[in-house]
Amino acid sequence: MLVTRLIERKRDGGRLEPAEWNALIRSYVAGDVPDYQMAAMLMAVYLQGLDRIETAALTDAMRRSGAQLSLGHLASARIDKHSTGGVGDKTSLILAPLIASLGVTVPMMSGRGLGHTGGTLDKLESIPGMRTDLTLAAAREQVERIGCVLIGQTTEVAPADRRMYPLRDATATIESVPLIASSIMSKKLAEDLTGLVLDIKRGAGSFLRDLDQSLDLAGAMVALGEAHGCEVVALLTAMDRPLGRAVGNALEVEEAIHALQGEGPPDLMAVTFALGAEMLQLGGVAADGDEARRQMERAISSGAASRKFQAIIEAQGGNPGVVDDPAVLPQAGACELFEAPRRGFVARVEPRPVGRALVALGGGRARPDDRLDPAVGFVITAKPGDWVERGEPVATIFARDESGVEAGRAALRGAIVIADEADHPLPLVSHRVTMDGVTRTAVDA
Amino acid sequence: MLVTRLIERKRDGGRLEPAEWNALIRSYVAGDVPDYQMAAMLMAVYLQGLDRIETAALTDAMRRSGAQLSLGHLASARIDKHSTGGVGDKTSLILAPLIASLGVTVPMMSGRGLGHTGGTLDKLESIPGMRTDLTLAAAREQVERIGCVLIGQTTEVAPADRRMYPLRDATATIESVPLIASSIMSKKLAEDLTGLVLDIKRGAGSFLRDLDQSLDLAGAMVALGEAHGCEVVALLTAMDRPLGRAVGNALEVEEAIHALQGEGPPDLMAVTFALGAEMLQLGGVAADGDEARRQMERAISSGAASRKFQAIIEAQGGNPGVVDDPAVLPQAGACELFEAPRRGFVARVEPRPVGRALVALGGGRARPDDRLDPAVGFVITAKPGDWVERGEPVATIFARDESGVEAGRAALRGAIVIADEADHPLPLVSHRVTMDGVTRTAVDA
Repeated sequence: MLVTRLIERKRDGGRLEPAEWNALIRSYVAGDVPDYQMAAMLMAVYLQGLDRIETAALTDAMRRSGAQLSLGHLASARIDKHSTGGVGDKTSLILAPLIASLGVTVPMMSGRGLGHTGGTLDKLESIPGMRTDLTLAAAREQVERIGCVLIGQTTEVAPADRRMYPLRDATATIESVPLIASSIMSKKLAEDLTGLVLDIKRGAGSFLRDLDQSLDLAGAMVALGEAHGCEVVALLTAMDRPLGRAVGNALEVEEAIHALQGEGPPDLMAVTFALGAEMLQLGGVAADGDEARRQMERAISSGAASRKFQAIIEAQGGNPGVVDDPAVLPQAGACELFEAPRRGFVARVEPRPVGRALVALGGGRARPDDRLDPAVGFVITAKPGDWVERGEPVATIFARDESGVEAGRAALRGAIVIADEADHPLPLVSHRVTMDGVTRTAVDA
Repeated sequence: MLVTRLIERKRDGGRLEPAEWNALIRSYVAGDVPDYQMAAMLMAVYLQGLDRIETAALTDAMRRSGAQLSLGHLASARIDKHSTGGVGDKTSLILAPLIASLGVTVPMMSGRGLGHTGGTLDKLESIPGMRTDLTLAAAREQVERIGCVLIGQTTEVAPADRRMYPLRDATATIESVPLIASSIMSKKLAEDLTGLVLDIKRGAGSFLRDLDQSLDLAGAMVALGEAHGCEVVALLTAMDRPLGRAVGNALEVEEAIHALQGEGPPDLMAVTFALGAEMLQLGGVAADGDEARRQMERAISSGAASRKFQAIIEAQGGNPGVVDDPAVLPQAGACELFEAPRRGFVARVEPRPVGRALVALGGGRARPDDRLDPAVGFVITAKPGDWVERGEPVATIFARDESGVEAGRAALRGAIVIADEADHPLPLVSHRVTMDGVTRTAVDA
């Protein structure tokens, strides 16, 4: 295979055959194709695109570059949920135990936070003792035993993606719909799923530019799933403000535990239930959204969902006592209320400044190898549309020390915009994308 | 400087400031920007283009990445000639001594052959003892003494181009007008020229796709010269057949010597004189083309041009006896006439198959580090438009052995197309491009 010829063809807007994608990815992982050739190919793909057959072939080649979970022997459906990343998004922490407690197997492979977005692994690891670096064999054993596992992308899974992702980051080729879709789906398909629910974020805190790009990505992922025998449903959800109230690793675990006990904030529960309803329907245990909703509420009120979370934590070495007493989580050294600087409507709560402020406090990553302080963050109780009086507490800042509190206060002053008139936030869930097409919805809290 | 941001801007069709090009190239040469980031940038440039200000800034940054000849103290004009590469093109070997013998300084830096195209350095090195790897200091001393030097791109000159060229080759980013223009001009401007004549090849043997791209490149190079105080004139010349009769390193030196003695084939002399007339006018020693032509004919008939070639060869360690007796050049082990397989008109002599056949015989390079056999090649006497009888000799094959002769014969059978009707070859010189615009010409032998 002459790699230069393949780059040339893509550069000129042509297409590569599935066997060519497979050979390219295989040679890349074997070290026979250097990073500079892959970088040129990625830029050509960014600018010239991939059609759906090429995207499916690239995804398949990336998936087959590594090991895969093998769960076909299980009787139950295997359903995962994936989000494109946001601020305050702890739905995975709630959904994994909640849906598993209803008899659907949830083999969930998650990522770490980077930049302004958080990551499920980082949140989980704020639970004392909790391990997420299980081997595929251990993950499989846990799935068989308790129906759920929460792990990171091991070195065994999709090594092509593990090498390509940092290369894309360094070469400005991240924001390409076929490259995003193939990166996500190569890992998700390695979980041997029967169905996948995608949470595609929209708005200022999302890394997608606009609604069209979000719908494009949703369509590409649904088609990719279809091509590989995994039914995919995508929901477009609001990331024009943080989801829920807590932003910060341990703080979000605490909020997720409250949610599993029926005490979650309305916006978080609305998005969680919308995603969960899709998971339960894909899993074949609920016939429609209403039935799914009733099942989830029952699993919460009965304590089944909380007990499943305890079982998962215990199985992965964590302290299951956290579910009854979140105070076992790491605690911030300094905390302080943040008060509204004027009266008026909360016009906006800007997710990017909040996410970046978390990084500045030590609770997020500017670089992939940064270490985290799990205790720091924010609990922002004010929501867009709320009326607040001057001096009324609208948030709490959790920091390591007084200087962190000061930095957090400065960040919130910019992020929480209070004005004479309310703004128009996005609907919490605005679109649903399946193989049948796009349906507009308007789920709100 | 965040390189990813620069790549991103070019990817999105934006422009980089001169200081940004300079910082990028400087960091690349220093090893702070890895090849994979440069590869992504090159592909973005290939697909999004560079405007003239950016092309000038990139060229300048590449030129300033290394050392430069400093010839400003000389009273005479410094004029070089550069060709985009072809088959059988030995005009540099003739023009350097010819123009230098007329009082114009010619500091000529040339390249090696690659693929189907030959290189001046390879041809020169077929002269026993001849060295082309002079330092800039030695080149400068020789220029001062005899008005001409024929060297390769030393490691001192434009190291950015030395690293970027193989990277472009591996990433399918060669055929970009601004990248070609900046690569050539960064080296030519390092020669401290007052003027430059460009020979831009057209037709099947050229690596440019079509007339538009050739004119684009000519325009870009003329503008680049203007931006750096070096007057550039570009001629578009025919490469739809080999130039002259000889193709092969020693064979071409021999043909060049004959040309310097007034015995060159008409097509070769027509192109040589057209380029030389531009050099003499840029050099200020001829007022117009007719005067330049008379001067060149006189330098040939008086022996001044041949003597200058001898002086150059001697100064660079070569055997100057080659000019009086070309038999001192390496001789092929086997040689055989090639006869016309049928009667008819010579419709075409395809340059690429001829150039590739030379590579197959060992006289050219498939890879940059291939070693050459200087003696092998072809002398093709038939020209498009000639009438030939079946069995009439139309070429001579020079090979290492009988199997080489057989390979050469097979190649010529495909390359020399004889038909019932003559084809329409391109005019030898079809366009002249200066700052004043494009003029159509129709120079033929």
